[in-house]
Amino acid sequence: MRKPVCVTVTGAAGQISYSLIFRIASGEMLGPDQPIILRLLEIKPALGALRGVKMELDDSAFPLLKDIICTDNAEIAFKDSDIALLVGARPRGKGMERKDLLEANANIFSQQGKAINEVAARKIKILVVGNPANTNALIVAKNAPSIDSKQITAMTRLDHNRSLTQLAQKIDRPVAQIKRVIIWGNHSSTQYPDLHHCLVGDTQALPLIDNEWYVNQMIPSVQQRGASIIKARGASSAASASNAAIMHMQSWVHGTKDGDWVSMGVVSDGSYGIEKGLVYSFPCTCSDGDWNIVKNLEINMFSRQKMAATETELIEERDAVAHLFT
Amino acid sequence: MRKPVCVTVTGAAGQISYSLIFRIASGEMLGPDQPIILRLLEIKPALGALRGVKMELDDSAFPLLKDIICTDNAEIAFKDSDIALLVGARPRGKGMERKDLLEANANIFSQQGKAINEVAARKIKILVVGNPANTNALIVAKNAPSIDSKQITAMTRLDHNRSLTQLAQKIDRPVAQIKRVIIWGNHSSTQYPDLHHCLVGDTQALPLIDNEWYVNQMIPSVQQRGASIIKARGASSAASASNAAIMHMQSWVHGTKDGDWVSMGVVSDGSYGIEKGLVYSFPCTCSDGDWNIVKNLEINMFSRQKMAATETELIEERDAVAHLFT
Repeated sequence: MRKPVCVTVTGAAGQISYSLIFRIASGEMLGPDQPIILRLLEIKPALGALRGVKMELDDSAFPLLKDIICTDNAEIAFKDSDIALLVGARPRGKGMERKDLLEANANIFSQQGKAINEVAARKIKILVVGNPANTNALIVAKNAPSIDSKQITAMTRLDHNRSLTQLAQKIDRPVAQIKRVIIWGNHSSTQYPDLHHCLVGDTQALPLIDNEWYVNQMIPSVQQRGASIIKARGASSAASASNAAIMHMQSWVHGTKDGDWVSMGVVSDGSYGIEKGLVYSFPCTCSDGDWNIVKNLEINMFSRQKMAATETELIEERDAVAHLFT
Repeated sequence: MRKPVCVTVTGAAGQISYSLIFRIASGEMLGPDQPIILRLLEIKPALGALRGVKMELDDSAFPLLKDIICTDNAEIAFKDSDIALLVGARPRGKGMERKDLLEANANIFSQQGKAINEVAARKIKILVVGNPANTNALIVAKNAPSIDSKQITAMTRLDHNRSLTQLAQKIDRPVAQIKRVIIWGNHSSTQYPDLHHCLVGDTQALPLIDNEWYVNQMIPSVQQRGASIIKARGASSAASASNAAIMHMQSWVHGTKDGDWVSMGVVSDGSYGIEKGLVYSFPCTCSDGDWNIVKNLEINMFSRQKMAATETELIEERDAVAHLFT
């Protein structure tokens, strides 16, 4: 039997986590032979509900689940953590300015970054799901200087998956035949879903679709998809977000498929002229538990402008919270 | 690529289904090589929310998911259905008598049974999750005379799993080491969790525990577990129920482990003196897509009484709705 992997989930009594935790415990994320210890973090008022989640985990009799720790203490939640899914974040309250939201979350993620820095496994893999995910990830990185910033990522896989299906449905082909979609930039409405390198089977995707549809329908529809889900469901996306988190981690841990890539928010190394240090979504390949940005793709003027617009937003977000880490 | 399996889920916009459908679509229930078509049934007022679920399924880009049909028409929902998970049921409203509840559900499940009889695949496997699950399954069977009643089951796997963990925690052993738990009877507070044949590794379980704990704590705690979850979560169990549904189907389709059995509500053949024709939970082994009741277990007086009490309740439930199918 392998040594258990310690998985931390924050915001563990929330809706995304409720869809996420049971799939992790069943072995979907790390495979059917990998025992797991769950460390579940919540704020104090939610510890009662978290106790209910733990009872249901018990009632699931998952053979791989070796232990469940529920806590409101970040230093306990991240203790020896090998994988951390930072789901919990402060949602935008009524009358709250964007700047206030950024600051409220910056405080949460600073504290978690510090705890990770102190107590997590040195090789921890971190995925930030809670919004604003990219900037929250940046704050974790700034507060965890002893953790390699390559180990800290933000989720754009949901946007990536949304793009795959939008295209698949448009051209009436299975999603499994579509490769090399890219989400550039911020997990927000400025993100840029790029089909210029996308393949359907071995064929370029763009010539198969109408450019007007791509520019004026698909791009805005992916950018605004979160709001459309809320409108239909009366609640924000939870199961699809948790599914994307699982796929992000599967790719990172087990590798991407030959000839394909995934979108991940990672600390920019200056590739494609994106400002170094920003957490920006790039096309990435993964192997041996490591990710690498796909380099040297040709970028046309249209793409360049879209990539710059979302970069600008990320610079503004960073500058709004910079006083907290300088 | 294999032929897709058509999976019907009823009550598809509800909480249990929200935990269930994404795990089915990801391949957890039928395996990573089995394409799936989802047929999702809801009542008309919930079709908007169901549209949101479909959007999130789209946004998950599941490679195995070939099609999603959303409908409020049972004849569309069960068309060519190979596997049906009957999750939706009328919950007990304020001031509603037990008899009214039984009748309201009997109407729902009669209609679904008739549709299954008309349009489903002849080899359909049916699991009733919606309460009162055993009697609802009986009503399906009565209304689907051209479907072999062996293909119609009710879920007691959640109770089975709850018993596994209660015992595992008491004796501080992994759930994977515990075998041959039994839930007898009704998925209700009269159910009988039986440890008399249970093994921990190769050792009898009962001598390892205090009989007082088993009789006065474990049995009532499993019987009342649903209410305890509601108290802790402020909502009824969803993720653990959907997990049990997945495990029930995994066992039925892929078989039980050598030397172990599972609990399933099935149409009684008179085994153990249980009235023929009742849907009663028995210990079952599964192989080749078929289940069989484990026969000839020794039953002591204590067990005999508990088994009879839950049988009596099932007879009462059946008699309360008998006028609908005679």
